Amino acid sequence: MKAIQIVKPGTEPELREVDKHTPGPGQVLLKVSAAGACHSDDFVLNMPADGFPYPLPMTLGHEGVGVVAETGTGVDNVSEGTAVAVYGPWGCGVCHFCSRGMENYCSRAAELSITPPGLGVDGAMAEYMLVDDPRHLVPIGDLDPVRTAPLTDAGLTPYHAIKASLPKLVGGTTAVVIGAGGLGHVAIQLLRHLTPSRIIALDVTEDKLSFAKEVGATEAVLSNDDAVDNVRAITGKDGATAVFDFVGFQPTLDIAMGVVGTMGDVVIVGLGDGAATAKVGMFTQPYEVSVRAPYWGSRSELMEVLELARDGVLDVSVEKFALDDGLDAYRKPAANDLRGRAVVVPG
Amino acid sequence: MKAIQIVKPGTEPELREVDKHTPGPGQVLLKVSAAGACHSDDFVLNMPADGFPYPLPMTLGHEGVGVVAETGTGVDNVSEGTAVAVYGPWGCGVCHFCSRGMENYCSRAAELSITPPGLGVDGAMAEYMLVDDPRHLVPIGDLDPVRTAPLTDAGLTPYHAIKASLPKLVGGTTAVVIGAGGLGHVAIQLLRHLTPSRIIALDVTEDKLSFAKEVGATEAVLSNDDAVDNVRAITGKDGATAVFDFVGFQPTLDIAMGVVGTMGDVVIVGLGDGAATAKVGMFTQPYEVSVRAPYWGSRSELMEVLELARDGVLDVSVEKFALDDGLDAYRKPAANDLRGRAVVVPG
Amino acid sequence: MKAIQIVKPGTEPELREVDKHTPGPGQVLLKVSAAGACHSDDFVLNMPADGFPYPLPMTLGHEGVGVVAETGTGVDNVSEGTAVAVYGPWGCGVCHFCSRGMENYCSRAAELSITPPGLGVDGAMAEYMLVDDPRHLVPIGDLDPVRTAPLTDAGLTPYHAIKASLPKLVGGTTAVVIGAGGLGHVAIQLLRHLTPSRIIALDVTEDKLSFAKEVGATEAVLSNDDAVDNVRAITGKDGATAVFDFVGFQPTLDIAMGVVGTMGDVVIVGLGDGAATAKVGMFTQPYEVSVRAPYWGSRSELMEVLELARDGVLDVSVEKFALDDGLDAYRKPAANDLRGRAVVVPG
Amino acid sequence: MKAIQIVKPGTEPELREVDKHTPGPGQVLLKVSAAGACHSDDFVLNMPADGFPYPLPMTLGHEGVGVVAETGTGVDNVSEGTAVAVYGPWGCGVCHFCSRGMENYCSRAAELSITPPGLGVDGAMAEYMLVDDPRHLVPIGDLDPVRTAPLTDAGLTPYHAIKASLPKLVGGTTAVVIGAGGLGHVAIQLLRHLTPSRIIALDVTEDKLSFAKEVGATEAVLSNDDAVDNVRAITGKDGATAVFDFVGFQPTLDIAMGVVGTMGDVVIVGLGDGAATAKVGMFTQPYEVSVRAPYWGSRSELMEVLELARDGVLDVSVEKFALDDGLDAYRKPAANDLRGRAVVVPG
Repeated sequence: MKAIQIVKPGTEPELREVDKHTPGPGQVLLKVSAAGACHSDDFVLNMPADGFPYPLPMTLGHEGVGVVAETGTGVDNVSEGTAVAVYGPWGCGVCHFCSRGMENYCSRAAELSITPPGLGVDGAMAEYMLVDDPRHLVPIGDLDPVRTAPLTDAGLTPYHAIKASLPKLVGGTTAVVIGAGGLGHVAIQLLRHLTPSRIIALDVTEDKLSFAKEVGATEAVLSNDDAVDNVRAITGKDGATAVFDFVGFQPTLDIAMGVVGTMGDVVIVGLGDGAATAKVGMFTQPYEVSVRAPYWGSRSELMEVLELARDGVLDVSVEKFALDDGLDAYRKPAANDLRGRAVVVPG
Repeated sequence: MKAIQIVKPGTEPELREVDKHTPGPGQVLLKVSAAGACHSDDFVLNMPADGFPYPLPMTLGHEGVGVVAETGTGVDNVSEGTAVAVYGPWGCGVCHFCSRGMENYCSRAAELSITPPGLGVDGAMAEYMLVDDPRHLVPIGDLDPVRTAPLTDAGLTPYHAIKASLPKLVGGTTAVVIGAGGLGHVAIQLLRHLTPSRIIALDVTEDKLSFAKEVGATEAVLSNDDAVDNVRAITGKDGATAVFDFVGFQPTLDIAMGVVGTMGDVVIVGLGDGAATAKVGMFTQPYEVSVRAPYWGSRSELMEVLELARDGVLDVSVEKFALDDGLDAYRKPAANDLRGRAVVVPG
Repeated sequence: MKAIQIVKPGTEPELREVDKHTPGPGQVLLKVSAAGACHSDDFVLNMPADGFPYPLPMTLGHEGVGVVAETGTGVDNVSEGTAVAVYGPWGCGVCHFCSRGMENYCSRAAELSITPPGLGVDGAMAEYMLVDDPRHLVPIGDLDPVRTAPLTDAGLTPYHAIKASLPKLVGGTTAVVIGAGGLGHVAIQLLRHLTPSRIIALDVTEDKLSFAKEVGATEAVLSNDDAVDNVRAITGKDGATAVFDFVGFQPTLDIAMGVVGTMGDVVIVGLGDGAATAKVGMFTQPYEVSVRAPYWGSRSELMEVLELARDGVLDVSVEKFALDDGLDAYRKPAANDLRGRAVVVPG
Repeated sequence: MKAIQIVKPGTEPELREVDKHTPGPGQVLLKVSAAGACHSDDFVLNMPADGFPYPLPMTLGHEGVGVVAETGTGVDNVSEGTAVAVYGPWGCGVCHFCSRGMENYCSRAAELSITPPGLGVDGAMAEYMLVDDPRHLVPIGDLDPVRTAPLTDAGLTPYHAIKASLPKLVGGTTAVVIGAGGLGHVAIQLLRHLTPSRIIALDVTEDKLSFAKEVGATEAVLSNDDAVDNVRAITGKDGATAVFDFVGFQPTLDIAMGVVGTMGDVVIVGLGDGAATAKVGMFTQPYEVSVRAPYWGSRSELMEVLELARDGVLDVSVEKFALDDGLDAYRKPAANDLRGRAVVVPG
């Protein structure tokens, strides 16, 4: 079968002919319907060859939707022909985090060398995809596979990031979203439907700002040196109750810390450059700001995201690519030449 | 000044000429802009003379909005001319509940004979109204007083009832609202804006059902002997995650317990006939249903409700009455001859 | 191998020679170290033959601890020789509840005929026990198997019942435990270590009351007609913040509803006689009491219970029986001739 | 009357003869029973004269306990002779935060120039103390005033800091307390009684470490360059679930961030040197650490702290000073020559 693989660190991925996997006991083989390309793939592609953490060659793609094609022995709770989305952050399934479905925070994944598909083992950018356990599959019913694939990361990640802040986002509060791209535009939709808060979106181009307003932002502000003042002119002195930074570089984190109010949340999702720094301390107003950097989401949260899509709450912008043109799915986002998410459709 | 008072239990209220109050130390006198009439007033009007709990005559009205007209000594955090809504469930202000703003659950109100305005001391159905403490006032800015008055009870009560269930109302869940009247139609609006849940409204007439859909219900079902089956036909076997009963009689409580699912909430708000009974026990599916009967709401919740109104989330249907016609504000709802809430406007 | 089985409804269980199971793909065979006998087994033993819900003969025992003896194909996250406790309320593993580890509330268990061991399929009262999936095993390290077996139900059930009430049990509050038996005496220990609340225990004999005080109750009150007055004499007018009823009959539920205070929890755990009724309604003080009837607990909660045992917080009273004397483990509790729990030790 | 006042920034406070206050409408005058000296007073005493924020001279003392001596007009919910503790972080009483009793986070305090007693207006280090509103008084019954005074800050601050982390501190988790001084030794007691967690205390001397173990720490570790390794040797790779830093300098914050585990809390309470910096970012394990810097606590939390003292959960170490020797109460802690808290007793 065909697969888009990373063969050599620091080079473009390649479209190659590889063997189809055979599901072992407890495993499931999917015929892939759609696979999303994600910025974090770029992150992996650009990691240095020296110390590259994954075995190569490796099929890319950690956002996968497919149809059950074959099941290994002992698999009896999923049947061939069922359309499913793949929960990506695989864990051990038995530690305290995994027992609550938070496999994204598995205590034993590193020790047991368990990694998500496309980020350590073969992923979804192929005609077929091997899934290690049926618990990582969520039936999607009649949802469109192409629009569903990005929900497994670009939907789940902002949903998890936002969910812990929901109790604070009551009437009269403000939520700020920095970065109105693949994840940020989903965050805006989620905040629009799950809270009564005013939503202020920040990005660097007018085009992105009007996109942000299209998908539900109440206000849109350019992310520049005046951003803190401009946001505070809207919120007044109380500031924002929650700030979601989908960029994560120093300037955006400075904006986040500059606009948040007392007891507010600053949630860092963007990869940034790894030097993100948040200052906290006594006599530094506002009091009791909480800063956190979550990662991906839980199994039950993925189910909830798919339900939101079913209810029309989420509508991810996508651009489709055939598997043969799949390398473009990586080139265009890297060139910032895409609105929404790139999705590869093998069929 | 003119006031609508209950003079004798079991009879209609009367429009009378009474003395204006003078604010003592720490008290505030409001010029009333709008006063809402509430079903619970009927409850009071129909209590037997024998054992009637309040001193008479008493000015009715526990939903009040006005403008600060005069302040007693020691009041320095509110100024004359400010438009305010009155937080009605007055408490002692210092017990553990009151210290959290939950004066609706004051531990000492009974012992100290503290009662809400219109439910023990003179209320808002008059040209002027005395408020015992400035902490019971919430500035309303440029909100319309007429539409705001009902929010202090008919808005706050369903908001409080719903708020504790919000964390459960994730994507894919169902909320059921029984009774689409004064409080129920507000509950539907709140659920529409604060949750992604499917909302099923129940009432006894087709007219009320179409009203329910106008204000945001996803589905509307007649509240009759088939109601449980009809609701479950929509929810499937998982049932409803939260049921809000704004009626509270045995048949509606039976429906509530019949449609709720595992770990669901049954929230009883309606006055019912005092014999509401909920059955719980082992081997009675569904597991861990939580049944609760809340009362009114907290100070901070009233602020949040007013912010929701400011954002256009809440729009209470009202019918206006001059103070001279104020007795009609009690006659029409009693005759079920009103959509939404009756509001008396003294000015 | 030997097993204690229910062969005919309405009769005593029998000690029989049966075939050892062979683990299929994804399954695990345990050599049983200890199996707890539970009151709910009595409930099953006494169900009428007509409509008896389980296939017979069936090995009893839903509280099991053992050592991994053999694993089916595809099981790679547990190894032979590991000492484990069995999480009993098996579910599908993939529904929204199961994805959060709440298999006790599995949405599909009934539809898929999934039942706990000893309550539908062969259980722990034998030399060997088959477990359907390694996720139902929690390693116990060097914990004593005999004292650990009862924790899987008699520990987990009260822990889950209490956990949702913990945020309310702050300084100055009262928790009431009705029934100081197998589950109740664990509840007292948990409340003692996890909250600063005053703990009032109720039971019907002075012996049980002194047992309650030994394991941590602050006060002990006879469960009789004066119980409400006697408890309220201790709590004052604020009443209890949480009441845990491990009996569940009408008189104990009446006590529970009689002593609970505003915003308090009434948690029904005891099997009672299936007619437990809780009255709720407006103008029935106290306000916003929440009544719930939970069932067993979640996978992560079992892990937390085992950690509490490791820290010496929990110490279940047990009486040991050899497998050959195992029928006594059912006779003695039925005769109320036992303090704590009966545990069968096959080895 | 005598009062300990700050007269000139940068110099020692002075014992002076000043006028007794007269309570205005809504105010209360206390005869002081005990006043705690706090490290944050040192912070104030050492602020530069240029830009000193408070009017001078000013009576020190924000930890006060006294007896109601006189009430202004309009005060009817507290009576002369009642023993009370003073809730120190005064706010406006009507904003959204204050309406929930979180006056420590009052939105309008700065704008209205509202400050705590002893930190902007005259405080408790005198024979009499003026309190602006009876809602800032909590009756203490028969609690010892001397041991109670420090609870209003040194008890309330760690209680508030810990409370938000309690749901995470289940069986098998670790809490770390950095700094076993005035606040830290209270934190250890609270964690001991409110959670089943292992408690690791860190401080710089063996004497402080043994004090930490006396008051409830499970383990005590020197706060030096090896501290991270030494703590992780105890916790294993999962790290700590919550770290409370009562020092707040860069080295202790580095330890905090070095020992915390996935989804853990880092709570900064110590004043530090104002440059405390916490690093967060993607691909920085552990995931979703939450960093927050709370300030003091809420009115209801103070009530809960006093209840814990009543139950014997809290026992603050104190050293008593007569008012005439009150300057020593500031000299000794500054010289680190004190175990626990210095309390001045005017009577």
